[in-house]
Formats: sequence, C-alpha cells, structure tokens
Amino acid sequence: MRDVAIIGIGQTEVGEHWGKSLRELAGDAALIALADARVDHVDSIFVGNMLSGIANQQGQLGTMVADWIGQRFTEAVKVESACSSGGAALRMAYLAVASGEVDVALAVGVEKMTDSPGDEITAGLATAADADWEVDHGLSFVALNALLMKRYMHEHGWQSADFSEFSINAHQNAVHNPYARFRSPITEQQFAKSPMICDPINLMDASPIGDGAAAVILVRSDMLTTDLPRILVAGSSAATDTIAIHNRTQPTWLTPAEISSKQAYAQAQIQPEDIDLFEYHDAFTIMAALSLEACGFAERGKGPALAKEGAIRIGGRIPVATRGGLKARGHPVGATGMYQIVELVQQLRGQAGETQVPDPEFGMAQNIGGSGSNIVTHILKREK
Amino acid sequence: MRDVAIIGIGQTEVGEHWGKSLRELAGDAALIALADARVDHVDSIFVGNMLSGIANQQGQLGTMVADWIGQRFTEAVKVESACSSGGAALRMAYLAVASGEVDVALAVGVEKMTDSPGDEITAGLATAADADWEVDHGLSFVALNALLMKRYMHEHGWQSADFSEFSINAHQNAVHNPYARFRSPITEQQFAKSPMICDPINLMDASPIGDGAAAVILVRSDMLTTDLPRILVAGSSAATDTIAIHNRTQPTWLTPAEISSKQAYAQAQIQPEDIDLFEYHDAFTIMAALSLEACGFAERGKGPALAKEGAIRIGGRIPVATRGGLKARGHPVGATGMYQIVELVQQLRGQAGETQVPDPEFGMAQNIGGSGSNIVTHILKREK
Repeated sequence: MRDVAIIGIGQTEVGEHWGKSLRELAGDAALIALADARVDHVDSIFVGNMLSGIANQQGQLGTMVADWIGQRFTEAVKVESACSSGGAALRMAYLAVASGEVDVALAVGVEKMTDSPGDEITAGLATAADADWEVDHGLSFVALNALLMKRYMHEHGWQSADFSEFSINAHQNAVHNPYARFRSPITEQQFAKSPMICDPINLMDASPIGDGAAAVILVRSDMLTTDLPRILVAGSSAATDTIAIHNRTQPTWLTPAEISSKQAYAQAQIQPEDIDLFEYHDAFTIMAALSLEACGFAERGKGPALAKEGAIRIGGRIPVATRGGLKARGHPVGATGMYQIVELVQQLRGQAGETQVPDPEFGMAQNIGGSGSNIVTHILKREK
Repeated sequence: MRDVAIIGIGQTEVGEHWGKSLRELAGDAALIALADARVDHVDSIFVGNMLSGIANQQGQLGTMVADWIGQRFTEAVKVESACSSGGAALRMAYLAVASGEVDVALAVGVEKMTDSPGDEITAGLATAADADWEVDHGLSFVALNALLMKRYMHEHGWQSADFSEFSINAHQNAVHNPYARFRSPITEQQFAKSPMICDPINLMDASPIGDGAAAVILVRSDMLTTDLPRILVAGSSAATDTIAIHNRTQPTWLTPAEISSKQAYAQAQIQPEDIDLFEYHDAFTIMAALSLEACGFAERGKGPALAKEGAIRIGGRIPVATRGGLKARGHPVGATGMYQIVELVQQLRGQAGETQVPDPEFGMAQNIGGSGSNIVTHILKREK
C-alpha cells in the first residue's frame, strides 16, 4: 500500500442554504478544496451522502459533482452508510489512492435537508435503522438513541445534567468557527431548561440537521504540492454491528468504535494517549459518551465524568468537537464525516484560530452511522 | 497493486419476490457466493443498490447485509451510481483488495422494486437523471432514452425494426438461464407488434425491472481456494459524462464507455478483438447499439448492422447478453452490474450450459448509470 496524504480542504457554512442547490453546495466545497490543494484535475471522485434520493429526488451524486465542477469524464461514485457516509467516502478515496490506481482523489460530503418537510426528513433519517424490525414498529431515529441513553443512565447512575458538558463544550468551540450553524455559547441552566424531545434526550442533547458540504483532496504522499505541513492518513478502519439495537448483547457498548479505533491505532502505531484531539460523532450526547469509552479515552460508564472534569476542552487531555462538533457546527448527515476531516486538518496545520489545540501531531475522527451500526475511524498525522 | 481474483459467485432468480425481503434476497446471493468460494469470512462488504431508500425505506445496506449473513463487525458500505451501482460496488471491492488492505471482499448487488407502486419506481428511476434540469421539466428516464434513440435513428437512418435483433438474441439466450425473468423466445413479428411505450421505444426495446440479487467473492490472486479455473480482474475502469443529456456535444456517442473500455483494454493488454463475450447494458436497445460502437465492436452508427449480421449470437464474433441480458434476464437496477459479472464468470468457467461461448479467455461487462452518464467497465480473464 502507498502512503496517502491530504493536501486540500474546503467547506461551506452549515445552515439553511435556500439560495444554493445540492450541486452548488457540493461544488463550492470541492472547488475550495481543489484551490487549497493547488490541483486542477482529479482522477476519481467519492461523494458521501445519505438522503439525496429522498430529500432532493437526485441520485448518482458522483456524476453530478464531476459534471458541475468541470471534472467531466472523471470516475465518480456515491458512498452511503447513513450518518457515516462522509467517513465512508473518505475511506473509499483513501483505498483508491493507496491501491496505486488513483493518484489524486476528491472526497466530498454533502447534504441538503432543510428544503424538505420535517416529516420527510424524519422518515429519511429512520432509513438508518432497521426498516422491518425497528421503524415499522414505530421507532424514530431519535427514539432509538433515547432508548440507548435511558439504558446507559440506568446502568451507570447518571442524570440528565451529567451530559451537559458535552454540549456546552461544543457550543463554546463553535463560537469561533465561521462555518458552524450555532455560534452562541450555552449555559448549564439553558441545558437544564431545554425542552424534552424524546425522554431522556432534550433539545440540547441533540445535534441540529442542516445543509452543507465539505471536501478534501487526497494524493499519494510523494505528490505534495503545497508548502503546508504534510498531513498523512495514518489510520483508516471501519466496522459494523447489527443494524437493529435489540440484536446486540451489549447495546451500550459501541463495539465497532472499539474495533475500528484499535485497528486505526495499530496502523498508526500509537496508543489512545497519543491522540491530541478527537472529532467524535456527538449526534446525541449519549453517542459522545459511548465513543469516548469505546475508543479508550474513558473507562466504561465514565464518559460523562471525563467531560465533567474538563478533559474534553481545548487544552484538556483529549479535546473534542474543537470546531463545534455535530452539536453546534451542525449535522448535515452525509457531510458530517467530511467536516470532521476538514476540521482535523485545520488543527494539524495550525489553522484552527481561537480553538487551536497546542501543537497537535495526531488527530482522530470517528463517524457513526445508524445507532452505532456502522462506524468509520480515521487517524491523521502531521509530519514533524 | 495486487492482482485480484474472483473465486465465488451467487445469484437469485430475477422476478417478483413477494416472499423475500430485501435482506433475504441479498443474503441468499451472498451466502451462495460464499459457499461457492469455500470461504466463511470476509474482510469487507460492498453493496450496490440504487433505490432502497425510496422503494424499501431502508438505508445502509452494507450494515444490513453484514448483519444478516453473519459477518457481524465486518466493514460494509453501500455504493450508488444509479443503474451502474452494481458495477461500481464491484470496482470498490476490487480497489480494496488491490490496495493490500483487504484480502477477501464480498460484492453484492441487490434491488427490490416490485413491492412499490409503479409511479414511485418511475420517480425513483428518474433520480438517475438531472433532477433540476431534466426531471423537473417533465422527462422520465424512458423519455430520455427515447430522445437518444430518436436522434440516433435520424442521424444514421435506422428504423424501429432494425433494433429487434438485440431483443430477440437476449430472449433466445435467456431461455436457458434458470435465473432469468423471461425465458421465452420472441420473434421479429412480436417485436414489431409490441406496444409503444415512449416513441420510438416499444415494449420489446425496453428491459423489465425486477427483484433480485447477485454476489461475487474477490480475493488477492494468490489466495485461490477452489479447483475451478482462476478468474482474474484484468481490467477495471469507470468514467462519467454530464448528468443531463443536453450538455453533451455528442449525445449519441457514449464517451465514458469509450474511455473506460479503452482503459480496461490497456490494463488487460488486449484489443477489442480479443474479447470473447460482452455482457452489455441493454436497458434499452439504443443503449445496446451505442455500447457496441463506443467499445470498438461496431463502427459509429453501425451497431444495429452488427446485430443483424448475427455477430452478437453465441458463436458469433462478439456474443452479447449470453444469459439474457437486461432485456430478458431482467434489470433489478442496482443488482444488474453484479449479475453481469456472475454471468461472465459462468462463461469463463465453462458453466454456461446451452449458451456457453466456446472456450472464452476474456469477457467484458459494461454497466451504465443514467443516460450514459456513469459507466463502469470490467474485463475478466480466465487463466489458461
């Protein structure tokens, strides 16, 4: 396998983009990434997206993006694994370059959700769960996460307020991210008073949907063309679990997060302690806690404790959601995994401004599809 | 890059599977392929599918298949490029094995279309076209192909009857394929009398939708475990064109078919004359003609002439649709590309029964997404 480097990044603001179509959002992020990488041609395009067929009546986004950004005739394909579609697209691009067949790949994550009626999006998001054995019985995607959270609180004795720090930290960091959907801090009190969505998940436990796109350019590592630090893909791994939660023996343990992070650590030849920041998948605060535990940053059942002791803040032991995370940067579902990668690269390059982690060498991103049923983990490394 | 071999194949009959769910269809094909390959574990799963979000309210088929066939925790992802989703999934599996990261990959194509109302499927198929600039103006997917066919007939002076041999040959070959949707031959007269669907496309110009799944097992080539002939992936390439037809300078020339077939010939170090059979994408007879021309088997505008002179029959210069093609085996859209590969392997192994091509060494499959906007070409080789 060849070493693979990321040499370009691009993103749009996450928000309600009434004035931009799906192709324009994807194109904006892709063209910024191409300019950042100083390349004008790519060999292959991989688009991460979850809902375009349902929300935008548009399939084959690979072709659509290639066409729109002027890369006519280029190989292009869409990759989907629910909310981890962005991470999965990055991994396919990585494998294509690592294989030796492709020298320059573009990976784009894009989602346009706010044009569609809410019930359509709720139904669309539920396609991440098991249609026959979960959704047909009345469970929405939020409800599945609520079941997980309730069980976790029961097993480990946590209260609702114990999850507040995940959201407070995310909002605090997003204040300084011009691409974030919500750039206002929240307080403990605001968290406590926020309306209940699906007991025990309140509004501040949940991330917002949104429209947005993010993109990266991957090349074989000897093709670097910029003066910026070399950012290498040091680890890349994905794993699944049962699609329905009730088939899992340990529903409150993210086995695919454990498997994929351990494989990524092994590939990068490091330990969890070597990770300088972690862009985790805080779609709900319960997922934040479970990810920290499964990846080896907190003991089982102790995710909220890690947050409460300040370890997840910038300057803490393991900073997370450093640009706002899903909670405050926003969660345009199929694009989220690519936003995480863009944000890691910003950090490793030293471009993260007010929320810059001091001199990071290794950053990890973890993108979760379904209720923990498809998890993609990447470790990026800045060469000293 | 490592050499990649296909050591297992599986398929279900194409038809109306009222008694089988999406996961059961995919699982049936996958388990047959695993048994055929004599392996009980795969490292990665790639699922080709176009419409499950719309037609089955189910996303992340990668996870669903891994879970259902007992490959829990395995990496798994869905790949989509409209009707070429099956070919694209095979190519992703090929790249993963070629990269050195994955030793054993399962590629599955699956589609379940006949449970859904016809208008829902028609709308779903239209997501292969440009939502903003084609579909919103009233064009269905059949209508786009009708425009192409009309223009082609105008440019080259062909009549409707000149396309009949594509369908007659397909039905003749399907008679002997137990997995085909239609196993009855058709005559010139039946073709001429068939009802008009969308002028100039009549019912016998068009392939039928259906439910079905097909699967293959790919391994690094030194891992062969069966006594069957070694079937190597000798060429793999994909290319795109504009998603909307009106943006093409030459709408009746499949540029991505030309590009991807030329790349595949170069990889396999052969010429078109060396191809012993061609599983082409005869979704409509116009696509059959255009594919033969763009891939170098017929001169421009002469596709129908090649068919009329008998060259596409078993024993002819370039046998096509040897197991029935999309026209008679059926076109479960996201699965079709994988059926083509399964059928190529049957031929190269000498398992094609009454429609066996004599002693083939090279077989080519070409899977077309949209109105020629995303084309994936594979060449398989039997080692002597």
